[in-house]
Amino acid sequence: MKVRVGINGYGTIGKRVAFAIAKQDDMEIVGVTKTKPSYEARLANKENIPLYAAKQEFVEAFEKEGIKMAGTLEDLLTKVDIVVDATPGKMGKEYRAMYEKAGVKGIFQGGEEHGIAGISFNSFANYHEAWGAQFARVVSCNTTGLIRTLFPVDNVFGTERVFAALVRRGADPADKKGALLNAVEPTLKLPTHHGPDVQTVMPWLNIQTMSVTAPTTMMHIHCVTADLKKKAKGEEILSVWDNTPRIKFVSGKHGIKSSAQIMELARDLNRPRGDFMEIIVWEDGVKVVEKTLYYYQAIHQESDVIPENIDCIRSMMKLEKDPLRSIRKTDRTLGIGK
Amino acid sequence: MKVRVGINGYGTIGKRVAFAIAKQDDMEIVGVTKTKPSYEARLANKENIPLYAAKQEFVEAFEKEGIKMAGTLEDLLTKVDIVVDATPGKMGKEYRAMYEKAGVKGIFQGGEEHGIAGISFNSFANYHEAWGAQFARVVSCNTTGLIRTLFPVDNVFGTERVFAALVRRGADPADKKGALLNAVEPTLKLPTHHGPDVQTVMPWLNIQTMSVTAPTTMMHIHCVTADLKKKAKGEEILSVWDNTPRIKFVSGKHGIKSSAQIMELARDLNRPRGDFMEIIVWEDGVKVVEKTLYYYQAIHQESDVIPENIDCIRSMMKLEKDPLRSIRKTDRTLGIGK
Amino acid sequence: MKVRVGINGYGTIGKRVAFAIAKQDDMEIVGVTKTKPSYEARLANKENIPLYAAKQEFVEAFEKEGIKMAGTLEDLLTKVDIVVDATPGKMGKEYRAMYEKAGVKGIFQGGEEHGIAGISFNSFANYHEAWGAQFARVVSCNTTGLIRTLFPVDNVFGTERVFAALVRRGADPADKKGALLNAVEPTLKLPTHHGPDVQTVMPWLNIQTMSVTAPTTMMHIHCVTADLKKKAKGEEILSVWDNTPRIKFVSGKHGIKSSAQIMELARDLNRPRGDFMEIIVWEDGVKVVEKTLYYYQAIHQESDVIPENIDCIRSMMKLEKDPLRSIRKTDRTLGIGK
Amino acid sequence: MKVRVGINGYGTIGKRVAFAIAKQDDMEIVGVTKTKPSYEARLANKENIPLYAAKQEFVEAFEKEGIKMAGTLEDLLTKVDIVVDATPGKMGKEYRAMYEKAGVKGIFQGGEEHGIAGISFNSFANYHEAWGAQFARVVSCNTTGLIRTLFPVDNVFGTERVFAALVRRGADPADKKGALLNAVEPTLKLPTHHGPDVQTVMPWLNIQTMSVTAPTTMMHIHCVTADLKKKAKGEEILSVWDNTPRIKFVSGKHGIKSSAQIMELARDLNRPRGDFMEIIVWEDGVKVVEKTLYYYQAIHQESDVIPENIDCIRSMMKLEKDPLRSIRKTDRTLGIGK
Repeated sequence: MKVRVGINGYGTIGKRVAFAIAKQDDMEIVGVTKTKPSYEARLANKENIPLYAAKQEFVEAFEKEGIKMAGTLEDLLTKVDIVVDATPGKMGKEYRAMYEKAGVKGIFQGGEEHGIAGISFNSFANYHEAWGAQFARVVSCNTTGLIRTLFPVDNVFGTERVFAALVRRGADPADKKGALLNAVEPTLKLPTHHGPDVQTVMPWLNIQTMSVTAPTTMMHIHCVTADLKKKAKGEEILSVWDNTPRIKFVSGKHGIKSSAQIMELARDLNRPRGDFMEIIVWEDGVKVVEKTLYYYQAIHQESDVIPENIDCIRSMMKLEKDPLRSIRKTDRTLGIGK
Repeated sequence: MKVRVGINGYGTIGKRVAFAIAKQDDMEIVGVTKTKPSYEARLANKENIPLYAAKQEFVEAFEKEGIKMAGTLEDLLTKVDIVVDATPGKMGKEYRAMYEKAGVKGIFQGGEEHGIAGISFNSFANYHEAWGAQFARVVSCNTTGLIRTLFPVDNVFGTERVFAALVRRGADPADKKGALLNAVEPTLKLPTHHGPDVQTVMPWLNIQTMSVTAPTTMMHIHCVTADLKKKAKGEEILSVWDNTPRIKFVSGKHGIKSSAQIMELARDLNRPRGDFMEIIVWEDGVKVVEKTLYYYQAIHQESDVIPENIDCIRSMMKLEKDPLRSIRKTDRTLGIGK
Repeated sequence: MKVRVGINGYGTIGKRVAFAIAKQDDMEIVGVTKTKPSYEARLANKENIPLYAAKQEFVEAFEKEGIKMAGTLEDLLTKVDIVVDATPGKMGKEYRAMYEKAGVKGIFQGGEEHGIAGISFNSFANYHEAWGAQFARVVSCNTTGLIRTLFPVDNVFGTERVFAALVRRGADPADKKGALLNAVEPTLKLPTHHGPDVQTVMPWLNIQTMSVTAPTTMMHIHCVTADLKKKAKGEEILSVWDNTPRIKFVSGKHGIKSSAQIMELARDLNRPRGDFMEIIVWEDGVKVVEKTLYYYQAIHQESDVIPENIDCIRSMMKLEKDPLRSIRKTDRTLGIGK
Repeated sequence: MKVRVGINGYGTIGKRVAFAIAKQDDMEIVGVTKTKPSYEARLANKENIPLYAAKQEFVEAFEKEGIKMAGTLEDLLTKVDIVVDATPGKMGKEYRAMYEKAGVKGIFQGGEEHGIAGISFNSFANYHEAWGAQFARVVSCNTTGLIRTLFPVDNVFGTERVFAALVRRGADPADKKGALLNAVEPTLKLPTHHGPDVQTVMPWLNIQTMSVTAPTTMMHIHCVTADLKKKAKGEEILSVWDNTPRIKFVSGKHGIKSSAQIMELARDLNRPRGDFMEIIVWEDGVKVVEKTLYYYQAIHQESDVIPENIDCIRSMMKLEKDPLRSIRKTDRTLGIGK
């Protein structure tokens, strides 16, 4: 029998998780929630995904617009084994209580604090920590990106110290909130939360971060530098990453010089939604000077955590013991296998 | 036997035409040309699309990079019935001579002048004009957009006069040429070329245009106003368009308020490359005041001319006499049928 | 004795009105209000402009930050003859009651409805309407822009009908609210409010408008077309505007091709704040085809209404009977005289 | 007698140097050169700055447009003691030969390589190196920015190692070349040239850099981290900078959160052209963790090197022996003194 999954919040992350679950043979979507009768709610109807109102009071607005509803979140919770909570950041606490009461497991996203679940999850670094757990948190897109490339490097070469400067996208493509049209804005509170957030998964890592927000909708770009314990050559680093799932190389020499061209490549590869769930590393933007590694990576903020959500369900629902088998299954079904 | 098609120029338009032809049962891609060993050339190799160098002198650069070449444009021309010329604007003349010498038909794009072919093509307005022709030009994305909505309105209600203000995207998403980051730039030469360009297909239409360029990569937006001959209601206009292929409605009330949200919808609908080959009309942005119609439409500059290229091949190669049958076949195969 | 002016709201418009009043010999700034201890409040302190809290409850926050306050808005109202209300749009009603109670005159900005004052003001078109009035509204930056160029043209050549497509800036340079980073967004409600707003000043004008918002912080750009009653040549139109204050020509031929280059010119001319209080018309972007005039104009949204505020004070306070004398005085003192 | 200065290239830097020299009592502008009859050439005419054609062949184009010319660059060179070369990058070599032949001194900008002059200049770090020299190069805006804050910190606390991630503006406000509208582009060649460029002035500094380009016209933003030799507190660092000319603090707490608000402040302070010639440091964006310092700074790319050009003239022309006296004089005359 398939694991029955509900998705609370059918937005940027929620709709991608739904799409990914539909590709799996060991889990299925039971329903998704929405707060407003937007075009996304209409699409759920068209695709025959049962739609639930996040609260009873929202039902009327949907019905007025002729959108078919299957009930409310409370109804949905009676039918599922696990909920992927893809609600906007900082709303998790309220929902956690509902999940607990309904006796269902819950996965939160990186917009929530570590404390909401006590377990912060990455498929490579700590798959087993979520084994059978009631709650876990898949870390944010930026944190996932840092862990994906740093974990294997730390594993093979060791790291003394890591510093990353994150250039964050101002808003998602269709998102109207909050970025200045023509400005760069630093995150003044130092060190930024990204370092400690990586440490929720890799507590031994000595990492500091700074970040700025740029007026683009296309990917986060990281400038990373790491002091290694062992000497390494650039090719050795590349070789480690080449053998790591969910890391993809691009090359400036082939004309992929910016985040826009990376996203163009995703379209040309006919990736669903033009997403890149892998972390993108410029192979001609990696350099080791003595024992210090420098590299650039690009993070597709809308999608890189999707495979982690699938793996996290497997770990929490005890569907697959071997992390690498889960990772490979997820990647094969999502078309991102190496 | 399938019509054998070559594509000269495997960029924004060329790669989409190749994708569209691969979906047809009455034509096939014989090869595409490229001038540089970019990642797009690599992709052609991966997808087993025979790759030709636009000129002999380019071959070496490809081979150095390990890209497999099938020959040069001259070789390609010996193997095809018709070429879709998707080279950058203003290079058509030179190529036209080559096509003529090789005895193959040629379709040019809207970056070339009308005179290059003497026939400017739109599937609805003048399918038969290209019947059996040696050369034709598919008009530009903006012109195609204006014709798609104006032709049926003019047909049913008549038009005294049309004025359109075009807000053009500054550059395509991965394109690095020429737009100011934070500015709007008017096309000072008045009237702009768009009106006369519409008249190459609809010579009877009294149309004037102005245009500005905005710092966005997302679609052209048209503000159109037309004085009608007959009275009409907004719903009647919408009904005419609803019955016209390649026009799609969106609604601000459902949350589709800008070009970004339109493109997001294309992604959510899992359209290849996130393209919208239809002209997008806001159904709540149409108004008739007395006999004057006002409406907004959005043009996906990268893709709206693709179906026209397919139909144009059919007309020039005498594959299908009935325009509507060609249009429906194209639309069904491309997943944009109504 | 100078007219005593208070400014309610020391933001984009308020600080510019203060700057302009400081240049006049027949009026003086008594104080300005602020709601938060921002850097602008600090600047007011530095420049010895008496600062008042918009409400009593805000005073503490200022004092905590060491900002010197002269009292509250209520205190300010006891000391002035007239208030320029430069508060954010739609807050005017509440304030109007306070001004009325305090027995002071009030000028509202274009973010408020016509009804708030019953008189909508433009220096050229209806200076006398505000004569001695208790309340008046200076129309918005876009409306002011349309009136400045249309009023003289209508005066000399007559107009049958005007249509304008407005390409609005998404946000002011340092403003973080609400524009999409990479999108164009039409104003779906048609006709847009700009036409009726022009008619609050020129009720006889037959004008329709559409508008879109573009992701730029630099100026609104208008595409205007007007059917004239009398034949005219382009040069005649230019000559009329050349003789009209507050209209400035630029030329694409001299390299001023976009809104960014216009603003660069303002900087090069050492205009305070890099503002252009004039309406900018491209002299090589004006064309008359038969009796229809086409032109582009650029509106500096932050500053074009400033001189109108000064003139409006003069009219309401009966300081100067002759509109042209007020206009010339204002322009001379602000360095924008012809 | 005043030192006679010519400016070769009257663009972004050239026009600002001209403006700055006009404020000095020990030097004067003899003339500026231009290659095209742009609006900037017209402005030079209006301001009575003698205008010279960069080459004889350009003269005709100016005269056709009615722009008054005083001769060619060759003529200008006969009348000056020193030239400030503000021509576009990589053209310096050709001009250097002309200056040498004419027997005049020359100052190059940061777009040229160190080798062109053999001396790379910063007012604080190595004023005396340019003493009496025939050629010197004022380092680029980014390099100047790094030196201004790092030199005093290195001086007082010592540095083991510095790393900076530079987020560069894509283009200047009115510049149409080369930035993608919606993308971030890393400088793949590592380490980027900025570190070595700092070392042309501070050869002892152990500094590495990475950089990306963002789609903004507003300032470069630097994320800097430095391992100090001595322990320091944040306030001590701030105190050192507070005592250093040409460093200005802003505070996020006062609402200055991004590059756009910094530039807005420059406008509010009525700085000529809205420029900030100082390096801007967020005082609430400075942090020391153990011996590692983190800070953000913002560089106004159009203007920060202007005072350095003035000081460099003084050093090369032996006008003032004491660097600090030159710096203070420059700053006082330019309105940026502390």
